[in-house]
Amino acid sequence: MRIAILSTIAWRTPPRHYGPWESVASNLTEELVARGHDVTLYATGDSVTNATLKAVCPYGYEEDSEIIPKVWESLHISNLFEEADQFDIIHNHFDFLPLTYSSMTKTPIVTTIHGFSSPGILPVYRKYDDRVYYVSISDADRAAELHYTATVHHGINIEEFHYQPHADDYLLFFGRIHPDKGVREAVEIALSCDRPLIIAGIIQDRDYYKKYIKPHLTPGRIEYVGSVGPDKRSPLLGNAAAMLHPIHFEEPFGLSVVESMACGTPVIAFNKGSMPELIDHGQNGFLVENVSEAVEAIKKLKAIRRSDCREHVKRFFTVDHMVDNYVDTYNKILSTKESNIEVN
Amino acid sequence: MRIAILSTIAWRTPPRHYGPWESVASNLTEELVARGHDVTLYATGDSVTNATLKAVCPYGYEEDSEIIPKVWESLHISNLFEEADQFDIIHNHFDFLPLTYSSMTKTPIVTTIHGFSSPGILPVYRKYDDRVYYVSISDADRAAELHYTATVHHGINIEEFHYQPHADDYLLFFGRIHPDKGVREAVEIALSCDRPLIIAGIIQDRDYYKKYIKPHLTPGRIEYVGSVGPDKRSPLLGNAAAMLHPIHFEEPFGLSVVESMACGTPVIAFNKGSMPELIDHGQNGFLVENVSEAVEAIKKLKAIRRSDCREHVKRFFTVDHMVDNYVDTYNKILSTKESNIEVN
Repeated sequence: MRIAILSTIAWRTPPRHYGPWESVASNLTEELVARGHDVTLYATGDSVTNATLKAVCPYGYEEDSEIIPKVWESLHISNLFEEADQFDIIHNHFDFLPLTYSSMTKTPIVTTIHGFSSPGILPVYRKYDDRVYYVSISDADRAAELHYTATVHHGINIEEFHYQPHADDYLLFFGRIHPDKGVREAVEIALSCDRPLIIAGIIQDRDYYKKYIKPHLTPGRIEYVGSVGPDKRSPLLGNAAAMLHPIHFEEPFGLSVVESMACGTPVIAFNKGSMPELIDHGQNGFLVENVSEAVEAIKKLKAIRRSDCREHVKRFFTVDHMVDNYVDTYNKILSTKESNIEVN
Repeated sequence: MRIAILSTIAWRTPPRHYGPWESVASNLTEELVARGHDVTLYATGDSVTNATLKAVCPYGYEEDSEIIPKVWESLHISNLFEEADQFDIIHNHFDFLPLTYSSMTKTPIVTTIHGFSSPGILPVYRKYDDRVYYVSISDADRAAELHYTATVHHGINIEEFHYQPHADDYLLFFGRIHPDKGVREAVEIALSCDRPLIIAGIIQDRDYYKKYIKPHLTPGRIEYVGSVGPDKRSPLLGNAAAMLHPIHFEEPFGLSVVESMACGTPVIAFNKGSMPELIDHGQNGFLVENVSEAVEAIKKLKAIRRSDCREHVKRFFTVDHMVDNYVDTYNKILSTKESNIEVN
């Protein structure tokens, strides 16, 4: 199959540090190539891939302030659409802007909606609802007014996450330091059940950190270890007794939740957004409503087999599984299209 | 001729107060309609026109903060290009972004380049240099690396500017309060030749205003009167002995220079950018290099006949003249295209 993958030009594909959309686009691209598909990746010039790389923009605009996003985004997107007829399918990981170029081609366009940055972007998705095939990253993240072809959960490279059958005593918070992520509640939970807590992640809301987190920091009890890169991630996740994920927003997908389970660590999450799609309550973690329910859940941690957490990820959240689902989606679209000959 | 005019969605077309691109797009549109062309104006929903108005965005994003520019610009532009085949010609007044949609249609696209906000936008113009017909707004504003079909100077509605045969004694600065525009030098010139100066315009650089302008303000000598709207513009321009325009940048076109001359008021300008295309040295103003040359020029003001200033505008800078030039440009492009049958 001749597949064009459109990544963003915010960061390199795959990203050096941060860049979840680029990370998914990269995992998908490389596995499609490994399976023998003819894949062209549209991304920044410094991207690394086994696919054919097509780039007009040398670096990500988040990594080079000389690059004017509006200029290079439009050149990047039009570069694909001007040669779109040579592909069997186009897979867009670049938000809404490419949809407005969709009438340049008859090649079917799959768009993974990685999230709605604002309800203000919905008019574009509404306009192209008939024309473009939408994929949600969780059932929870669907907009009621749009039609979707599939939900495809993100998959991780499970070999990057080492299974740890025996945990230490500490609880872990792993994510952005921001009210949405519930770091304050993680601290409350740890204090309530008198367990050590390690907090890892970039500080996105400094006032919140100063007011609610910093005053509680005590060596050996509540510790903040900063942002943790790929090399130190696996032991930090794997040695935790549980990951706390007391979120306050409808999270479209929780990559850290899946990563934690891959290391054998169950997750105690507030039951919001995509959490019930990721966590099998009582099997590999607990879905709770508030701090006191989380404290109760910690008492039941022993009932969870860490190997079950790992197995759950192996079964549902690998790159292989994600790519199976995307290839199924492509095939479904192409067979529909053939049977209609002229879709539009 | 079936003509599509693509205006911006920053402001209403025509603008309520500020909006030079929208103003030119409006003047052109209304005169084309008056001449019997079949004109469709793509602009904000609250725009006022005798053409067929096509709008997806209700208000200008500069006038309604709810409107996300990236969302509505892409919907606005794609709305035209998705139905572009029904026009004989498309005339773009919306910067570089529409060029990246140009392969959606075989209809020829004229783009008036109203200015280069940064050299960083040139890659888009370079890419579409073969495909799109560029018009510069002055010979001075041409980028050496691009090919242009024509230069078309802006035209004004001369009936909005009343001719004043007898001037007062004061000099006038009329423009943004910003170092580019040389307000500081205008003050120096007025002080040097001991003439009153009236300064009108929005303050764009407050520090500059406080440091170089405000300390000199003295009633009856150097006065700042704020921003002056259309109703009070004509007497302010017309009663001045001369307009001072000591610019420090390569101004692509000086609308206020033409407006001043329309009222009979000569202009003393620093010889930069488009100034030699607007001012006929010694006939309707003076092109000078510095403050002392400007002071010398003021001594020679009596040699200029105010009626010559008005005549110059009547001859070269009316809406009628501008529209003649644009229609000629359209015809030139269409006849080239017919003789080639398939251009692309």
